[in-house]
Amino acid sequence: MAEIAKPYVLFLGDVPDALAAKTATGIVDWRRDWCVGQIRLPGCKADTGLKDVSIEEAVALGAKTFVIGAVNAGGVLPDLWVASITEAIEAGLDIASGLHTRLQSVPQIAGAAARTGAQLHNVRHSEQPLSTGKGTKRPGLRLLTVGTDCSVGKKYTALALERGLHAKGAKASFRATGQTGVFISGRGLAIDAVVADFIAGAAEWIAPANDPDHWDVVEGQGSLFHPSFAGVSLGLLHGSQPDAFVVCHEPTRQSMRGVEAGLPSIQAVIDQTIALGSLTNPAIRCTGLAVNTAALDEAEAKDCLASLAQAHGLPASDPVRFGVDALVEPLIAMTPR
Amino acid sequence: MAEIAKPYVLFLGDVPDALAAKTATGIVDWRRDWCVGQIRLPGCKADTGLKDVSIEEAVALGAKTFVIGAVNAGGVLPDLWVASITEAIEAGLDIASGLHTRLQSVPQIAGAAARTGAQLHNVRHSEQPLSTGKGTKRPGLRLLTVGTDCSVGKKYTALALERGLHAKGAKASFRATGQTGVFISGRGLAIDAVVADFIAGAAEWIAPANDPDHWDVVEGQGSLFHPSFAGVSLGLLHGSQPDAFVVCHEPTRQSMRGVEAGLPSIQAVIDQTIALGSLTNPAIRCTGLAVNTAALDEAEAKDCLASLAQAHGLPASDPVRFGVDALVEPLIAMTPR
Repeated sequence: MAEIAKPYVLFLGDVPDALAAKTATGIVDWRRDWCVGQIRLPGCKADTGLKDVSIEEAVALGAKTFVIGAVNAGGVLPDLWVASITEAIEAGLDIASGLHTRLQSVPQIAGAAARTGAQLHNVRHSEQPLSTGKGTKRPGLRLLTVGTDCSVGKKYTALALERGLHAKGAKASFRATGQTGVFISGRGLAIDAVVADFIAGAAEWIAPANDPDHWDVVEGQGSLFHPSFAGVSLGLLHGSQPDAFVVCHEPTRQSMRGVEAGLPSIQAVIDQTIALGSLTNPAIRCTGLAVNTAALDEAEAKDCLASLAQAHGLPASDPVRFGVDALVEPLIAMTPR
Repeated sequence: MAEIAKPYVLFLGDVPDALAAKTATGIVDWRRDWCVGQIRLPGCKADTGLKDVSIEEAVALGAKTFVIGAVNAGGVLPDLWVASITEAIEAGLDIASGLHTRLQSVPQIAGAAARTGAQLHNVRHSEQPLSTGKGTKRPGLRLLTVGTDCSVGKKYTALALERGLHAKGAKASFRATGQTGVFISGRGLAIDAVVADFIAGAAEWIAPANDPDHWDVVEGQGSLFHPSFAGVSLGLLHGSQPDAFVVCHEPTRQSMRGVEAGLPSIQAVIDQTIALGSLTNPAIRCTGLAVNTAALDEAEAKDCLASLAQAHGLPASDPVRFGVDALVEPLIAMTPR
């Protein structure tokens, strides 16, 4: 897809809770300086902390794209949202959406965009032409965040690693594979929305050939052990050809998200990722553990990290709580000078 | 997708060689009695052996669906083909296509179908609403054909096993996961054409809950070791939850189809399939080897099969040359009475 024009104004609609606006929250966490404000409809219970603005104020503040940063229940775009989107187009903004509904499929939106020439970005429906994966090794260093489950901090860890690599003066680019990530990077695609034949090829497009000392930090998806999504995780692993991977884990979770299945051990994830990833990069190795310790108190969190680091012989940190310095160090050591 | 109405008339267009019409050939190999004839344009070099008919003759013979059984080069539907398809619609036929071009996207075809009410089946663009995979075990027995590579006889083996099970009085259904297979079964979908998120869910739809003594014989796709398509293969494995699998192999092949990658050993495929498949069916096991010995003479073929059977402690046969009795036997033994 084309780059999404910045800055953004974030539309939260009238969603009933903060979780429904987690896309907007993620954008603000990582790219606050790309956002001129938030737009909320009456009844909205989410809040990113950005200034509330109207569409006219957003335009006056320089906004270029109206980003739908919330998801509606039921999958059908509510009339109220359509009205706001249409008004934004008529005020001169592009629209970017991570919803399942394709913006062009709504006649009022398509009509307004045809009149103004607005770009309509559907992050979940990439129009990017893709090829099947080639599997051939390409230049540049790559890291993939993998998980013991879905929703264990793979995107957050990748973004924190990009920032940590930059802080050490290394070349690094966050590479988005999910809708929030695409808004945060302004490029990429939702890899779970591509046609199955092209998963690996999409990963090759997301993280293309680069300088030998440049790190692509690729946002992982799903888990090789998740019965719904393992195919996506495997295609992403094969296409991203990681030299390094970090295992993301939530130590208090009891079962796989959304299904009746147990969680794999961290060691099983390491072994499986190496066994399968070596098909396209025989040098693949695990360089650390990123643990979401939000459910533990400070002392428990430190104990948990120390014992995991000891058990696996790998650096372990909670990127949110304790930063990523320990996880960046082995990457700096791997970077050619 | 809706069932494709039978009987068929097979359209071969003006393709320059037999390989371009392998969909039609596959249909004739397995469902000759569903076909009233073939339609060829001047210059066509393919031949299924069916009687050549005109559209009017096909209709007179009772044809219900005009099946595009060949692929054109370049991905754009040639004008000559569009003319034939439009004529077929106007003669009262439905159309079924495995091409990348969606039939509805061609204005003449869409217009003709709107006038006559013809069904337009796009096997590569399933409109079947799908869910993500659940991973929960469902009743019925399932077998999946897996491969050391693409194009090693997985569809042929699955169809031969269905026929072999029927010959022993067992309940069995071939379950299609590729375009030719869908034409042969009249149902199913091209699993490599579904959105990545739904691979496992699509496999669950393709092979739904069934009687405890009924075998779904699921057509495999790709290979867990193919760097372009392994994600599809893994989702299909997880969703089909096989109790049994047969490894399909071509003993003279030197490298993976279409990419620079070596072939895995049969043992590696067995081990990997069990390791990954046990996530959704811990009882998964390999019940035999289906070897394409076309490149060997009769004595070499028998030697090859005997030595593979010996090395793996499993029945081995070439389904085309020596039938599937040896491969059906363990399935009959597994079937509850």
